[in-house]
Amino acid sequence: MTTTTATDQRGHEGRSPALSVHEDPRIDVAALTDQLLGPYAQLRREARAVAGSPEFHKIEGLPLAEHRERVLHQLRELVAKHDVLRAFPTRLGGADDHGGSLSRFEELVAGDPSLQIKAGVQWGLFASAILHLGTEHHHDAFLPDAMSVEVPGAFAMTETGHGSDVASIGTTAEYDRETQEFVIHTPFRAAWKEYLGNAALHGTAAVVFAQLVTAPEGGQRVNHGVHAFYVPIRNPATGEFLPGVGGEDDGLKGGLNGIDNGRLHFDHVRVPRTNLLNRYGDVAPDGTYSSPIKSPGRRFFTMLGTLVQGRVSLDGAAVNASKLALAIAVRYANERRQFAGAGEDEVVLLDYQRHQRRLLPLLAQTYASTFAHEELLAAFDEVFSGRGDTPEGREDLETLAAALKPTSTWNAMTTIQECREACGGAGFIAENRLVGLHQDLDVYVTFEGDNTVLYQLVGKRLLGDYAKALKAGGAGDVARFVADRAVHRTPLVRAVQTIADVGDARRSAGQLRDVETQRELLTDRVEVMVAELAAALRPAGKLPPAEAAALVNAHQHELIEAAQAHAERVQWEAFTRGVQAATDPGTKQVLTWLRDLFGLTLVERHLAWYLVNGRLSAGRARTVSSYIDRLLVRLRPHAQDLVDAFGFGPEHLRAPIASGAEAERQQEARAYYRAERAAGRLPVPEKHLR
Amino acid sequence: MTTTTATDQRGHEGRSPALSVHEDPRIDVAALTDQLLGPYAQLRREARAVAGSPEFHKIEGLPLAEHRERVLHQLRELVAKHDVLRAFPTRLGGADDHGGSLSRFEELVAGDPSLQIKAGVQWGLFASAILHLGTEHHHDAFLPDAMSVEVPGAFAMTETGHGSDVASIGTTAEYDRETQEFVIHTPFRAAWKEYLGNAALHGTAAVVFAQLVTAPEGGQRVNHGVHAFYVPIRNPATGEFLPGVGGEDDGLKGGLNGIDNGRLHFDHVRVPRTNLLNRYGDVAPDGTYSSPIKSPGRRFFTMLGTLVQGRVSLDGAAVNASKLALAIAVRYANERRQFAGAGEDEVVLLDYQRHQRRLLPLLAQTYASTFAHEELLAAFDEVFSGRGDTPEGREDLETLAAALKPTSTWNAMTTIQECREACGGAGFIAENRLVGLHQDLDVYVTFEGDNTVLYQLVGKRLLGDYAKALKAGGAGDVARFVADRAVHRTPLVRAVQTIADVGDARRSAGQLRDVETQRELLTDRVEVMVAELAAALRPAGKLPPAEAAALVNAHQHELIEAAQAHAERVQWEAFTRGVQAATDPGTKQVLTWLRDLFGLTLVERHLAWYLVNGRLSAGRARTVSSYIDRLLVRLRPHAQDLVDAFGFGPEHLRAPIASGAEAERQQEARAYYRAERAAGRLPVPEKHLR
Repeated sequence: MTTTTATDQRGHEGRSPALSVHEDPRIDVAALTDQLLGPYAQLRREARAVAGSPEFHKIEGLPLAEHRERVLHQLRELVAKHDVLRAFPTRLGGADDHGGSLSRFEELVAGDPSLQIKAGVQWGLFASAILHLGTEHHHDAFLPDAMSVEVPGAFAMTETGHGSDVASIGTTAEYDRETQEFVIHTPFRAAWKEYLGNAALHGTAAVVFAQLVTAPEGGQRVNHGVHAFYVPIRNPATGEFLPGVGGEDDGLKGGLNGIDNGRLHFDHVRVPRTNLLNRYGDVAPDGTYSSPIKSPGRRFFTMLGTLVQGRVSLDGAAVNASKLALAIAVRYANERRQFAGAGEDEVVLLDYQRHQRRLLPLLAQTYASTFAHEELLAAFDEVFSGRGDTPEGREDLETLAAALKPTSTWNAMTTIQECREACGGAGFIAENRLVGLHQDLDVYVTFEGDNTVLYQLVGKRLLGDYAKALKAGGAGDVARFVADRAVHRTPLVRAVQTIADVGDARRSAGQLRDVETQRELLTDRVEVMVAELAAALRPAGKLPPAEAAALVNAHQHELIEAAQAHAERVQWEAFTRGVQAATDPGTKQVLTWLRDLFGLTLVERHLAWYLVNGRLSAGRARTVSSYIDRLLVRLRPHAQDLVDAFGFGPEHLRAPIASGAEAERQQEARAYYRAERAAGRLPVPEKHLR
Repeated sequence: MTTTTATDQRGHEGRSPALSVHEDPRIDVAALTDQLLGPYAQLRREARAVAGSPEFHKIEGLPLAEHRERVLHQLRELVAKHDVLRAFPTRLGGADDHGGSLSRFEELVAGDPSLQIKAGVQWGLFASAILHLGTEHHHDAFLPDAMSVEVPGAFAMTETGHGSDVASIGTTAEYDRETQEFVIHTPFRAAWKEYLGNAALHGTAAVVFAQLVTAPEGGQRVNHGVHAFYVPIRNPATGEFLPGVGGEDDGLKGGLNGIDNGRLHFDHVRVPRTNLLNRYGDVAPDGTYSSPIKSPGRRFFTMLGTLVQGRVSLDGAAVNASKLALAIAVRYANERRQFAGAGEDEVVLLDYQRHQRRLLPLLAQTYASTFAHEELLAAFDEVFSGRGDTPEGREDLETLAAALKPTSTWNAMTTIQECREACGGAGFIAENRLVGLHQDLDVYVTFEGDNTVLYQLVGKRLLGDYAKALKAGGAGDVARFVADRAVHRTPLVRAVQTIADVGDARRSAGQLRDVETQRELLTDRVEVMVAELAAALRPAGKLPPAEAAALVNAHQHELIEAAQAHAERVQWEAFTRGVQAATDPGTKQVLTWLRDLFGLTLVERHLAWYLVNGRLSAGRARTVSSYIDRLLVRLRPHAQDLVDAFGFGPEHLRAPIASGAEAERQQEARAYYRAERAAGRLPVPEKHLR
């Protein structure tokens, strides 16, 4: 069924005058742009106007030192001239608008990812820690200068010896009753604070995470776990480190070189008692520790939970980076021609089946990520606005962020790289943006929670929910475990019927494009994986620690796979809601095909699972790939509209290959040959002589 | 079966004192290094000594202009002091040693990939075109200065409008009988020569590919297709372009910034008739064209075929880059600890199942690529030495290079990226090499033949061989098509029995590790894919051109998949021969496991195919993954030996994280806590109070 369509696709802009399918829908691009920009459309547009102005553009190849200065300057321009403090309290000049604030920052990636991340360090981490971990004194004393970037600040959590495992950091903050000070100390090299933005050069203060040690008079010294302290680190006038503080420059990185990452170490540096950011734990002048949260474990996770916004914004920024890459590669694929075809002109790249296979599923995935991100942002705003700030709400938000941030950041890496390769040599030239985006986005997959670690958090949550549901339904009663929860969509174990093999490709494809079939396949997989995992790990509770750890480790890969399957399903559900929300019929039709492509690409990727577990017959499994091929043909004429709907202008893409230059060159070449032919000047090809 | 082993792995260096399997083999690292270095071991070691000396190291972050100068200087140092001209004629100071010469260049990637590629441009393309496409006059006139880098040269084949489709280039070289000159001309912007190393700055001459147009007196003007011309482009004294020549700098690229890539254009630039590199086509003074190869098509491919060495050396260099990345990441994974385990110390990264899953299959793949590359290099030397220079030998060589270059360059990208992520934040710091290797290797997948285009060449060859074999066996008689050919291992269609499901995981695993089972599975898949493809495309011959093209396009994805399956099988066969060649029993045992891991990882990746096509039952399919898990546990203690056997020293790795610094830091931290505990100074953890 694909054979007649490929030759019909003569439209240079990806419009096909004749489709082989009956439907001939058109996308309402402007309406789709509005939908994709979501509830914060206005804020996003304003932020894009900022990111699109030349002073906020990344200059590829700028020397390290200049790039760092440029981004610091941009940061201060942002605060001076633009609306970037929405997340902060209204009384201090902010707007208490957490979701809206993040939506704006996510758009900065189109200017320079270094700016997005430096803004994230300054406002999302440093100032945000003061806001969320501190109390009124800290807000009054430290927040204004942090907000205005009068004090550029580092967020000193990670250590050389401990990345994702924050609970084990070595830095100590011991309370000295005599002077009512905390003594900040990094006792060995592995306890140095590492990879901190603003640490190498610009930062004059830091929020330092350290093990809080105190003893009330006559009492024993107790380690109350990790707490955050506000610590001045440099003399703002001279840029010199303050006494006892030292550091190193991380130097050149794989990307994000507009940020001055570095290391910090502290040799018995003293700060006033009141520099402890004391919302979740405080020390009285006499050294007595108190906390509104009794359990040290829960207290620790509550403190870290305030940092979830970093993951939320990385999810959004990664999706935006994917959009930029696809907008460049699809435009080029719609103009670039290579190798003679059956017609007079050479073949447009995007008319090649393989090129469609390379780019269109990534486009579908990026749409899925967009819709899923908007839901994550809404959940974030619910909690941080206080409207939905319950323990369950926070836990669900953290799980959703831990599921989506790895998915979208890894997808961004895959997408950008495929786009770069799909543009051939032109994709490797820095001016075409793709290599720079890849370099800058790279670290998104391992910072703010390493993706592998985050998926394990998700996997553990899935196991926990499963255990709870089992308990609720009666021990071991898997079949009765059928309730679904809306927010984080816990997978459930149901008796799912194998989709019967009807032995007819057309009917088979019909079933595959049925939304309930797709939902069933994606949901079922997560549920069965979690249930099998739970069964495999059940003996762990009765084993000695070493054996229990070994048993869990022997299933680590499966745990991560289950988390990924869950994240993919969450994205698919969000995409499906996005399709439902589209009002224009043509748009809805194309989005339905795109959602089907996303769903079936997931099924194809995990096809072996469906076969091994009897969910798809061999015959039906074959249909998955052939139906994907049909969807590619249907979607191909809409590819340009689908990337245009992202709403980026040339000031955001800034890639010469996505500027129309390629089509112009072809016109010029065509005109030359036409003129030569008309003038009888074209030499005869040797092969025509024989 | 994995549960008891994980806890046994306490060895810091990856040595496990007790294995859960009966075998307790040890690798003879020195002997394995010798085997991996292959027949050119001595030359490789010498080249590594060069690449390991500081003057040939890449300096990360060097400004563009300085990096370019440094690499040009390195190139001249190479020729002045080292043995880099082996591929050239003995009478001109070379050694007529083609395989040995390439083996040396492949090792330069450990110094700086820019140097490897700039050397490739100068000697592998520019000088090599003079050698292989020119005749004695050109060798005498141009080769000495090209060899000595007195004349840095560009290889001007690719055009802005035509990358992989060289036959369609727009540059013309029209013969002028009056002056006995060729007029080189780029008639429009799309005909500009593009991405040429040495073009932006250093090159003073170029080998320019152009459509040769000539007319004998009174005869018609004929285009004899693409030929190569020696064209001076710059005044060596001033660096200025010669009259009629112009160009642009490609500027910053995603990597390889030690090379001055650029564009060239020609406005009726005249060169003497004798500057045509005339081995395969010549023009007499009177304008008469002659060629030893009648068919213009075959002539074109013969000329391009001389360039196969670029692909061969990229294959080798990509494998070396993968080795470097793995040596860094495995060393770090064997020292780095993260999160508390059951024991006293935190867990070493490589003891995590997922970390093994991430790195060990890539290690297996890199071993497979190493053995396969050595066979490719041998085939190359056979042909280029003249010993095996037959049309069949050349065709097989080109097919093998077209199969392996995409495989190993894509594998390098995957491997380097996984290694970078497996090293977390440290992997993103430039000094740890991984991001730089990724940036530099990136373009290997799209230059010297875009990988997607090369796989299509392989696919077409497989189809052609299949058609020939069918014909030889009687039309349509698939069952009789059973002969195998040794050199390029054409896949054959056989009646393969489904591997029966014996319903016992142990016996099932036993079958999976059987070498014949693996061979059968990998071979069968290629053969069936090719046969199905041939059947699907059969109607194309009888269709009008547009419909035929559409039919072929509708199967492009499958064609590429078949080529990849073929390449993977070729690598597996080479690995298997490598295992057989190992003499030390312990080494042989570990290599067997590693080869099994490679083979079964391929089967797992394509598991759906085996299930859909009835080659594996569902029960057997489950065993594939569980047997892989067992292999990971067996191989884990040998991971360090396996990367040590690559034979790189610290002067090649140059990554602080692979220097032992991490283990030292842990020792220091451990000593600190031990001393504090001994002195009774460790505070009590709060949770111990409750």
